[in-house]
Formats: sequence, structure tokens, C-alpha cells
Amino acid sequence: MTSLSLPTFADVQAAARRLQGATVRTPLLENQRVNQRLGGRLLIKAECLQRTGSFKLRGAYNFLASMRENDRKHGVVGWSSGNHAQGLAEAARLMGVKATIVMPADAPALKVANTRASGAEVVLYDRVKESREEIGQRIARNTGATIVPPYDHPWILTGQGTAGLELVEQAKEFGVTLDAVAAPCSGGGLITGIALAVKALSPNTSVHSAEPAGFDDLARSLAAGRKQVNDKLAGSICDALLAPTPGDVTFPLAQKLLGPGLVANDEEALDAMEVAFREYKIVVEPGGAVALAAALTGRLPVEGRAVAVVCSGGNVDHATFARALERYGIR
Amino acid sequence: MTSLSLPTFADVQAAARRLQGATVRTPLLENQRVNQRLGGRLLIKAECLQRTGSFKLRGAYNFLASMRENDRKHGVVGWSSGNHAQGLAEAARLMGVKATIVMPADAPALKVANTRASGAEVVLYDRVKESREEIGQRIARNTGATIVPPYDHPWILTGQGTAGLELVEQAKEFGVTLDAVAAPCSGGGLITGIALAVKALSPNTSVHSAEPAGFDDLARSLAAGRKQVNDKLAGSICDALLAPTPGDVTFPLAQKLLGPGLVANDEEALDAMEVAFREYKIVVEPGGAVALAAALTGRLPVEGRAVAVVCSGGNVDHATFARALERYGIR
Repeated sequence: MTSLSLPTFADVQAAARRLQGATVRTPLLENQRVNQRLGGRLLIKAECLQRTGSFKLRGAYNFLASMRENDRKHGVVGWSSGNHAQGLAEAARLMGVKATIVMPADAPALKVANTRASGAEVVLYDRVKESREEIGQRIARNTGATIVPPYDHPWILTGQGTAGLELVEQAKEFGVTLDAVAAPCSGGGLITGIALAVKALSPNTSVHSAEPAGFDDLARSLAAGRKQVNDKLAGSICDALLAPTPGDVTFPLAQKLLGPGLVANDEEALDAMEVAFREYKIVVEPGGAVALAAALTGRLPVEGRAVAVVCSGGNVDHATFARALERYGIR
Repeated sequence: MTSLSLPTFADVQAAARRLQGATVRTPLLENQRVNQRLGGRLLIKAECLQRTGSFKLRGAYNFLASMRENDRKHGVVGWSSGNHAQGLAEAARLMGVKATIVMPADAPALKVANTRASGAEVVLYDRVKESREEIGQRIARNTGATIVPPYDHPWILTGQGTAGLELVEQAKEFGVTLDAVAAPCSGGGLITGIALAVKALSPNTSVHSAEPAGFDDLARSLAAGRKQVNDKLAGSICDALLAPTPGDVTFPLAQKLLGPGLVANDEEALDAMEVAFREYKIVVEPGGAVALAAALTGRLPVEGRAVAVVCSGGNVDHATFARALERYGIR
């Protein structure tokens, strides 16, 4: 596989072999009361329990493990306000590779601290005045480091796809054939990787992206048949899901493999976080909860079906989580 | 095995076979940053992710599965303000057995609702004026139902012990030989069941109960060589861990199998809940967090060692969890 051809299920399987021992086989959770309420079976793939608190370690680790030995010696560089930063930093630590991460100066302090705790060098930039791509590219030129993109690369998305491979295997262990799978989507690395695995192993299962309302570039792109761009870059609490447009690798895959895109607003994401707390006992961040929100609101029907949703991350600050807790009193 | 002889590891293995497909093999979680801070390996057995949000389903299900068919037809009755109620109700639902649960009228509404959602009949009583034991015994006499005790029975404790069996197997999969294991303790069903498994599979691993400060009847009983009684029955946020004295079955086992008991106060339990939220992305209730608290405070040393703690439940109300979140700002 060259880095430009569209990846296949075999690449996801190869990624799963590389990830063995480095990533956690996160559990598939189920709750009797929620099932009862929805009238079907809802399974949650709890990627918030992945090392670094999100699925991002999968893609980053697969990328680093796929690089040539000689390139790894010069280190890696990436930009991210959150989960990709932590995933890439930890992948680099596990493989003994130097990592430099470009992060916005206003990123949550906890995410910056966690990235540093994995041994990465963090370079802060001003979101308004500076371009993180330019800063990252300059570092790459000056040091010979390899840029590790957040989603738009076969090595990244096939790494993320290992979550889908596990999900289908685990559903089978539950004796369940899935009618639908949904996962949160920013640039589309996670959902297209998952779709490669799900469509290969269970062709009749539909696969859907879930995006925050107002940042549903993939849903609109799929409907329009060509890439659409979000008209804003900020303004949702789903801070992990604000990519402006689908990727050049992820969009053709999405067109080939995905059903219609799903959308959830911030209030619905907070409601889903509260349900995840109360019923499943897991900590989910807003962006990580949008696929669950789509199932709970009925936009992704569960009645009479078996549906799996990925809760993709749990890196939420205390104040935002407290907002989700407060919603229980509201109803 | 009669219900009066002391149970053995073989009984835990038999329980594990009965529980197959009914209970979840909860994950063993690890966090690089916490390990770094403590200077060792800390593994968390996340029983908060068990069905019904606590380990209690294990013992209840094993009890019901061990009953004679003819006794099951007359139903079961139990009393509990929380996790045993939910575990017993769900075990009964899974096995198609009628369950009646005696709960205090002032129990958290959510726990009553959850118990009812499993199909159990809930009988409310007045904590001040009535005795739940008398009510439960009357129901048993009138209906022929079997009383399912919360901890002091071989079927219960060997069912809980399956968590220890899994824990040792999972640690082995991690390539870890455990120096110590600790679990929260009320009447001692969980910790003695776990000890049966751990001591059989890994004799050099020490096993410790963890109790709330002021309710450390087992720790004091172990030190004194005979059963001690707590001088109060309320006054800790660890509402799941307020049994007055060790059981007649659990205490002899504890004397035989356990090292010195550990203690954590309410503030330390809240701190541990915050760490579980921030680093492990799991929801743990105060009583479920006391073994983790013992590890984080250094009372159960982790430095240079491999230690596993059970987080035994996650049935915490929103307001108490918010108190734990606030502690992050305090430091």
C-alpha cells in the first residue's frame, strides 16, 4: 500500500497486528434499562477507556509503526488541540520516538499537561494570529521530522479502524448481528476506518457518521455528492469535532461505505454524557457523545434493532462534565 | 458444599461457570500518568462497569443459580438500600425468578426506580419505625420465598470471588505478577471471595480489605483476632460500606486469607473518585473508591510493585459526583 492509494480492510487487519499490546481492547457495554427504553439493543464501544482517553492512540501508533526506521529517528510532529496530541505523544513515547506537538495556547490546560506528561515537546500558538500548519511544517523542515496528520492518511484511518474490527468481533461474542454502527466524526478518520472493518465483516450493517450541529460537513458532503465546508470553526462544546471539511482520503471512502450522516446539537451531547454517567458509568466528552446522542434522540433508530455506537473519547474538563450532571435535575 | 461449610477456590471456579454470559468480564484498566506518579503499576478492576453498576450481580446470580429449581419457583426476597437490591433484582430477572426487595422509604429515588426497572417488587419501609429483617422474614414465611443475604453466605461470596479470578487472569495477560490486591469491604463478601481466588492462583500476593474510616470493623477485627462492631451505622458518604460487623462465614475466611485491613476517609474517597474520572474515565461511587484511595494515599504502597484494586461500584448520585469533581479545583 502506498500512502496515496485508498486503504482496504486488509490494512485494518495489518494495523490490528501492529497495535497488539500497545492499545487496549476497549469493552463493549450494554445497559438493560436503556435497551428497554429504546426497545432494542444498544451497544457502546467505550473508546474513552482507551489509553490517553480516546481512540486517537490507534491511528498514531499505527502511523509510527508503519514509518521507516530511519524516518522515525528524526522524530514526528503534529498539531491538535486535544486528543490527537495526546494519542500521538503517547504513541511516540511507547516507540521511543521524539514528538513535537503544536497546540493552541487556549487549549484546555489538562490536555496540554497530559501531552507533556507523555514526554512530547509542546509548541503553543495563537489561534487567531498564527497558522498551526505553517508552524508544524517549519518544524518538519528544520528537523527532518515526519508530519503525522490527524485523520487524512491511510495509516491513520486504518489504525482507527481497529476499533471497528474489535466492535464487530465483540458484538459477535454477544450473539448480536448489528443493524447499524455510528461513530463521532471530525475529519472522518475514525468513521471511515470503522466502515472498512464493518462493511468487510458484516456487509448488511449500515455505518453512519455523527457530527455536531453546525459542523456537519460530512453529512452535507455525502448528501451533495461533493465536499462541503463548515461556515465556522468554533462555537460548539464538541471541541474534538470541528474539522472544516472531509479529507481527500476519507471522503471517497465515506462516499463508498457510509449511509446518511447523523447530527446532534450541544444540548443533546450533554444529555448523552449524563446517560453515559448514570447508566454506563463511563466518562465521555461532548464530541465523544454525539453518536450516542443520535441513538438516544431516535435519529439513529434502535427500536427492534441492534445498534452499536462508539463513545470516542473522555477527555472532558471538570466544569463541562458538571454541566452534563446538572441536566439530570433539569428534566 | 453445604451452605454452612467454608467455601473453597473450587466453589469460585464453579461460580464462574454459572456466571458465564450473565455477568460482564469487566476490564482491568491502567494509566501511565498515575503509574509514573506512584512509581509502580496500579491496575484497576472496574466493577462499576458490571451490569447494575456494581459487583453485586455476581453473588446474587450465583446464589439463584445454585438454588434448587423448586425453591426458585417460590421467588426470592432481600433487603438493601442500594447495590445488592439492584444486583438481586437483575439476577432474578435474568433467571425468570420473582424478587421482592425491601428498601427504606428514604432510599435514593434512582436506586428504587432501577430496582423496579428490573421487574422486582419493591416494598418500602420506615427506617426509624420498622425492621427490614422482620418485613423480609414475614414475606419469606408467607410466600415461601428464599431470603438472599447480602454477603454472609458461601454462594454469595464465591460469586463475588469471580471478580478476583478474572483479575488474576487479566493481570497475567498484562504480564504482571501482583504483589497485592485490595477491594472495598462492608460485610466482607467481595474481599473474601476475591481472596479465595487470588490466594489459590498467586499465593504470594497479599490481599487487603479497604473500609471507610470509622467503619473499619474488619480491620479492627483482624487486628484483635475476634469480631469487633462499629460504634455507628451512618455518617459516611460510603453508603455501600456500612455493615456493623464481619459475617460468620466471611470472618473466618478473612482471618485465614487477608493481610492487615486498609482504611480511607471520605475526603480521600472523593479524591479517588476525581482521579478515576480524570485519568481512568470511569464513574466510581464513594464506597467503591476506598481501595483506590488506599493506593493513591500510599497506605497501600505501589512504589516498585504491581498492585490491583477493585473499584466495586458506580451507583453515585449526581450531587455527590459533583462534589468529587470540585476537588480538582481545590488542589
